[in-house]
Amino acid sequence: MIIVMKPHASQSSIDNVVELVKSSGLTPHLSQGEEVTIIGIVGDKSKLSNRNLEIAPEVDKIVQVTESYKLTNKKFHPYPSVIPVGKTEIGPYNLTIMAGPCAIESEAQLLTIAHAVKKAGATILRGGAYKPRTSPYSFQGLEEEGLRYMKKAKEETGLATICEVISEESLEAAVKYVDMVQIGARNMQNFQLLREVGRSGLPVLLKRGMAATIDEWLNAAEYIMAEGNHNIVLCERGIRTYETATRNTLDISAVPVLKAKTHLPVIVDPSHATGVRAYVKPLSKCAIAAGADGLMVEVHNNPACALSDGPQSLTCEQFEDLCQELASYAQLERRTFR
Amino acid sequence: MIIVMKPHASQSSIDNVVELVKSSGLTPHLSQGEEVTIIGIVGDKSKLSNRNLEIAPEVDKIVQVTESYKLTNKKFHPYPSVIPVGKTEIGPYNLTIMAGPCAIESEAQLLTIAHAVKKAGATILRGGAYKPRTSPYSFQGLEEEGLRYMKKAKEETGLATICEVISEESLEAAVKYVDMVQIGARNMQNFQLLREVGRSGLPVLLKRGMAATIDEWLNAAEYIMAEGNHNIVLCERGIRTYETATRNTLDISAVPVLKAKTHLPVIVDPSHATGVRAYVKPLSKCAIAAGADGLMVEVHNNPACALSDGPQSLTCEQFEDLCQELASYAQLERRTFR
Amino acid sequence: MIIVMKPHASQSSIDNVVELVKSSGLTPHLSQGEEVTIIGIVGDKSKLSNRNLEIAPEVDKIVQVTESYKLTNKKFHPYPSVIPVGKTEIGPYNLTIMAGPCAIESEAQLLTIAHAVKKAGATILRGGAYKPRTSPYSFQGLEEEGLRYMKKAKEETGLATICEVISEESLEAAVKYVDMVQIGARNMQNFQLLREVGRSGLPVLLKRGMAATIDEWLNAAEYIMAEGNHNIVLCERGIRTYETATRNTLDISAVPVLKAKTHLPVIVDPSHATGVRAYVKPLSKCAIAAGADGLMVEVHNNPACALSDGPQSLTCEQFEDLCQELASYAQLERRTFR
Amino acid sequence: MIIVMKPHASQSSIDNVVELVKSSGLTPHLSQGEEVTIIGIVGDKSKLSNRNLEIAPEVDKIVQVTESYKLTNKKFHPYPSVIPVGKTEIGPYNLTIMAGPCAIESEAQLLTIAHAVKKAGATILRGGAYKPRTSPYSFQGLEEEGLRYMKKAKEETGLATICEVISEESLEAAVKYVDMVQIGARNMQNFQLLREVGRSGLPVLLKRGMAATIDEWLNAAEYIMAEGNHNIVLCERGIRTYETATRNTLDISAVPVLKAKTHLPVIVDPSHATGVRAYVKPLSKCAIAAGADGLMVEVHNNPACALSDGPQSLTCEQFEDLCQELASYAQLERRTFR
Repeated sequence: MIIVMKPHASQSSIDNVVELVKSSGLTPHLSQGEEVTIIGIVGDKSKLSNRNLEIAPEVDKIVQVTESYKLTNKKFHPYPSVIPVGKTEIGPYNLTIMAGPCAIESEAQLLTIAHAVKKAGATILRGGAYKPRTSPYSFQGLEEEGLRYMKKAKEETGLATICEVISEESLEAAVKYVDMVQIGARNMQNFQLLREVGRSGLPVLLKRGMAATIDEWLNAAEYIMAEGNHNIVLCERGIRTYETATRNTLDISAVPVLKAKTHLPVIVDPSHATGVRAYVKPLSKCAIAAGADGLMVEVHNNPACALSDGPQSLTCEQFEDLCQELASYAQLERRTFR
Repeated sequence: MIIVMKPHASQSSIDNVVELVKSSGLTPHLSQGEEVTIIGIVGDKSKLSNRNLEIAPEVDKIVQVTESYKLTNKKFHPYPSVIPVGKTEIGPYNLTIMAGPCAIESEAQLLTIAHAVKKAGATILRGGAYKPRTSPYSFQGLEEEGLRYMKKAKEETGLATICEVISEESLEAAVKYVDMVQIGARNMQNFQLLREVGRSGLPVLLKRGMAATIDEWLNAAEYIMAEGNHNIVLCERGIRTYETATRNTLDISAVPVLKAKTHLPVIVDPSHATGVRAYVKPLSKCAIAAGADGLMVEVHNNPACALSDGPQSLTCEQFEDLCQELASYAQLERRTFR
Repeated sequence: MIIVMKPHASQSSIDNVVELVKSSGLTPHLSQGEEVTIIGIVGDKSKLSNRNLEIAPEVDKIVQVTESYKLTNKKFHPYPSVIPVGKTEIGPYNLTIMAGPCAIESEAQLLTIAHAVKKAGATILRGGAYKPRTSPYSFQGLEEEGLRYMKKAKEETGLATICEVISEESLEAAVKYVDMVQIGARNMQNFQLLREVGRSGLPVLLKRGMAATIDEWLNAAEYIMAEGNHNIVLCERGIRTYETATRNTLDISAVPVLKAKTHLPVIVDPSHATGVRAYVKPLSKCAIAAGADGLMVEVHNNPACALSDGPQSLTCEQFEDLCQELASYAQLERRTFR
Repeated sequence: MIIVMKPHASQSSIDNVVELVKSSGLTPHLSQGEEVTIIGIVGDKSKLSNRNLEIAPEVDKIVQVTESYKLTNKKFHPYPSVIPVGKTEIGPYNLTIMAGPCAIESEAQLLTIAHAVKKAGATILRGGAYKPRTSPYSFQGLEEEGLRYMKKAKEETGLATICEVISEESLEAAVKYVDMVQIGARNMQNFQLLREVGRSGLPVLLKRGMAATIDEWLNAAEYIMAEGNHNIVLCERGIRTYETATRNTLDISAVPVLKAKTHLPVIVDPSHATGVRAYVKPLSKCAIAAGADGLMVEVHNNPACALSDGPQSLTCEQFEDLCQELASYAQLERRTFR
């Protein structure tokens, strides 16, 4: 932590800050120049949490130098984590594809898609039973009924399963039926829910909030880890920018940035990132080339009639074609796949 | 709803769309030009919710022409709403100031501040008992104990009270102690929570999500209203942009835009919008001049030692000074105040 | 300037940085903690401009603590500047209104508007002769012919005049006819043009780039001042964000931020910020309440037929009404007006 | 073009719009619903350029359905363009790498780098002679002297050459020495300069503005093409967002979006997009996988002492390593390389 004093700050203002730091049990280091004095503090900055030094006299600004996330931080856990989900795992040695419908609509729909995505190469079935929709008048999901179909699909295909949870109630239900739960973008900073999935013990896919910085995202993961649950996978799904040609802007740089900052696996969701089916293939290939550990892709047996996000869903045939093309990219990245 | 076909789309693709629209019980209106055909549809577009026309052959794009929010829409409810809260009300005829500490720290702290803000002109006491914090290691609030101090402060001062809720549990507690609940920016699309506050019957302050469009915000309000709770006040608190000189970017235009789109009252939170105490006064004045129905301002009896957001909090003296200056602006806007 | 070393950086990496700093004639100050070492450097950091310390071994990051702009910096010039333009001036003691058509269309149009805006209270006539338009097929302005009408309007009304310049050629023409030149948002970092207006000697209105930070904006102003031209006024005109309800997002906080960072006057352009005529009045009032030294407003005698930006232009009658209402706000801010 | 009337607009307001459209020589098509009337207009909308229908009585909004760019539009030129540059070409059949220093510092520096990048697989040498820098106090480039070194490097290595131009003067100089000119992000809407490079006849690399939408970018290219110069290559270099972990946010989706909207080639600049050397390799691979026709990469023989952008520059060895790895990706995309 660095305290930058205003130019030509008076000695008494400098002394005041030095004193506040010392009285909190920390050691200040002064760098005094002709115009500006800066005061470096190394150590446990939480000791200063009730000292708002920003508003001490003649303080210009405070600069943080260390990250507030610890358990998720690669600095302290240098090796990449491998997260087990059902019979598969997510990590640096393989390419994981999660695929399935945006919303579960019926048992027949889900089973058809489950068999198709398994055949193509997916190892985890995704399917929404609780849908957070912008408008209250849109289809909100089959809820627990949908989860039961997920369990059935798992039994029939052997695929691991993942479902979004949006509340304590949906989490309690999900724990009974699926292998992994997802926190969606809109709930990335629903701290209560983060704590609860932390205590659930299930592996968690944590999607990035639409306007979350990478640091805030890792702090959200820290909430889950702080409850003792270390099985977290991060999912980049596009951020909000001024560009409207795509639904969101896929921040592909987040993949190498996260690889530098955390030990947690990172996957990419090209379907939500773009909202356009035709862009899913190029962005899937690019995600793997950028170092992602996997993908989450929306697949529907009849996108033209899908109750949610049809325009961004691949048909089963398109998904099969996608996986075939991805195999060469996985190989170049030395990841096992199919 | 308008369907724009690709240039030189074939007659059979156009016929296909026309047929899909008709089979859903709606009437298509064609505008055929030399290059482009557009198909207008007026009527209940929910009939097309399971027809993803975007991916029908040779469709270029779909343009929505009507808003998905109804109950919050000024088009159907032209007169401004007035929301009663405790013994006061929020609406076009007066200027409402909500003030208090970011986090409730102790009974003494809260009571000191409550008396001071009442004296200065506030009619609603704000105070955080459940704090959504970016890091799990930051102070998370006094929870129900804090709410009890709020009730005490109300009894002593007569101020109405407001507290943020972040979960079903905190909502259940809040209902017992305060007059109004707040949904914070991070929970603006926590649809489960929106429905629950909708059912609680308490007036709700709905803060804008950090990356929410005005339309998404009004759809979030629609979730609350759809549960039968019409007592909603919107709070602009800054959006996330690339500019870092302020914590967020206050979207002051949202005030007149909302006045044109909805009948609900709008207030502004200059403290969170900027994160800097010195900017609170100019932005408070500007919010009133822009047409806001009120303000939410953070006040602390000792900001230098505040456990949360000290640097953006005003001292009690600064708040008194602010209110004095605001009186003239309220008068120019023909709003009663103090 | 602060150099933050990676956690547990080796002594030799620390020594290497210390040596690089010393060999550049500067003095490093070490703060060594258990995990992290930070190295403060105060003094002329330009000595390190060819030392890219970011990529020295085990350096984590570099944090700048001082601004790169000097002449525009309030730290070194604490009193607000007053900029003379024709017979008027822009600064803290009065409220300056620049008004006129987006594009000059004819002599009759310009003179009609000039007389109307003068009568209402404007002291500077704006009018575009060189129009930077997104599409090459849109109206591009009357060029020098338009400037001649500006001169005529000045002679007839006594108003000072301002016109945007977009190139060396247009600047050479403008110098002959108008009192002040404007650098538009798209050219804020056209450094060649900044240097040329710096050498022209005319007062300059520097609009903020659509995605420029306040620091970049002040650095752009620094380019002009470095050429010896200190007559600069800054104009906030909205930044680009994800919100589409308004054309741009007016960053009203920029006004108090600039008042804290620079001695240059600041005005606000509500017409371009919103793109919607109905929002011009509330945002004009709010700009004054936020501390702006003036406004730039688009006015047209027949907006329905304007060749550029008609939908955001006020009629002459609306402008008269606006100025009447603004008078009370100017008075509250202790600024002379009309 | 579609005109959406306000709900329950009066017949006379609808008639008024219909009349305005007809009197401009266009045919309106009405779709009248219970609440809303929409009026479709197909044909040459420029006939309405002086009819600001947005502000006609009871008009709610205007929706554009066709793009304003024509020459760059894939709808009218479906096959991908191939752009010749020196002895090489940029297009769908090969992978083009432009590499070299951010700033040309000396003849020896440039020649060293030129030989190295040629050996590794680059076909175009980049080097900045005119540097647009945020601060006027930063190194501004060797100007014409730098261009002479570029010519020398071309003669020695056979590489084609590209240099940024920032003004008419620099363009006049560049034409004499290099094979291709670059318009940088800050000048993407410097329309005067666009017209001039349009008239120069040289191939042009048009970088995306920091806050430019894809549509604005294609309109900027249209300015060049409208002058008769069809040799344009687009370069995605990152856009400005709220995320600060990278200098800019690489909008990788822009690659497939552009492939759908225009026939012009697209390359990616991972160096400027991230500002961090370690991220250049993953983002280079990802750009190729996303469908880019090439890359622009900063390479320096001694990044630690580079006068500009050292932290994002690869060493010659790192660049050689990068090209080796890229070869497999080029092959997967069926592009010739090296």
